Amino acid sequence: MMNSADAELIRPGARRGGRRPGDSGTREAVLEAARRQFSQLGYDRTTMRSVATEAGVDQKLVGYFFGSKHALFVAATRLPFDPAGSMSGVLGGDPSGTGKRLARLIVGLLEDPVASSRIIGLVRAAAAESRAARMVCDLLTREIWRPAAAEVPSERPALAVSLVATQVLGLVMARYVIRAEPLASQPPEAVVDLMAPLLQMVLVSGHTQP
Amino acid sequence: MMNSADAELIRPGARRGGRRPGDSGTREAVLEAARRQFSQLGYDRTTMRSVATEAGVDQKLVGYFFGSKHALFVAATRLPFDPAGSMSGVLGGDPSGTGKRLARLIVGLLEDPVASSRIIGLVRAAAAESRAARMVCDLLTREIWRPAAAEVPSERPALAVSLVATQVLGLVMARYVIRAEPLASQPPEAVVDLMAPLLQMVLVSGHTQP
Repeated sequence: MMNSADAELIRPGARRGGRRPGDSGTREAVLEAARRQFSQLGYDRTTMRSVATEAGVDQKLVGYFFGSKHALFVAATRLPFDPAGSMSGVLGGDPSGTGKRLARLIVGLLEDPVASSRIIGLVRAAAAESRAARMVCDLLTREIWRPAAAEVPSERPALAVSLVATQVLGLVMARYVIRAEPLASQPPEAVVDLMAPLLQMVLVSGHTQP
Repeated sequence: MMNSADAELIRPGARRGGRRPGDSGTREAVLEAARRQFSQLGYDRTTMRSVATEAGVDQKLVGYFFGSKHALFVAATRLPFDPAGSMSGVLGGDPSGTGKRLARLIVGLLEDPVASSRIIGLVRAAAAESRAARMVCDLLTREIWRPAAAEVPSERPALAVSLVATQVLGLVMARYVIRAEPLASQPPEAVVDLMAPLLQMVLVSGHTQP
């Protein structure tokens, strides 16, 4: 909800006929505009101003809601997969294959152009700014880590999930951001084979038992 | 070496009496000023301009040498440990303890305020910009990965070293940047115990054999 002082931030006569104070659609309109621009123009060419213009609100309102472009990016990002559905696919079935199924899921997402640009974008935003890092942490905790911890067959499931996150973040940074060789030029199936035993260790093999 | 067009970039009458074209100390003077400012003022308050002023050169020359603040930061960063000495300490001794010794070294560096600010700074710079990412990759390849690969008892030592890098980058991102819980609040010795079997697996246990 906005207070009355925020009403001035809504530009009179802007697109969509201007948004009223307390209009619950305002924040969503900003996020929609941000999503479209980040995906079509890319991160660098999208600005707080260009998003505000498309959403028909004052730039200050975007700042009021989100604080920075990194934070707006994180808020606008939708996870490129359904965590609940993916989880049951990974954790169902033979426990000795869990690491391999999770490695296939992760590498599959990172080799898909749309999904990987969102995931790598989140990692970059988190690394750039502590506010965005907190938002990424909140997003991943809420959408992936907490639901996953409820399903993971470990005595310390939340810790096991943190260690899976460590593996994914390390893979993103080493293979896709820094491009460490020879990892960066391995074919995807080889990366699955490299990651599977590490994921099996942290998720299933009692690695995090006290 | 600079060409003659670069000579104009050196500000006449600047500190140290101005630097001459081809002065091999110019680049080093910029790096020295950058090192001092990044460590004493922090990343945000250090600018290409403030570094140029302290080094007594035109800001354009700093741009010519380094391209961006991220890249200047990477070039100015000295690794906070001696890779060769550290490596022999880790790889010497009982092979069954290699993962633990490496985990102690890595966590020790990341828990040390000076060393960790340099390591986390490199990771942040790499995530922020592809040019800085390439420079971080070159730095790590030259200073750590290539010498380490010569010593690692694996059939595919370079790949094993890439996977160690994956573990370190993941730990930096998950524990120190995104601060994923409960990993972020584990005591250092617990993190050593969590990382040791992962490092043992990638470095010693035949994980990367074809």
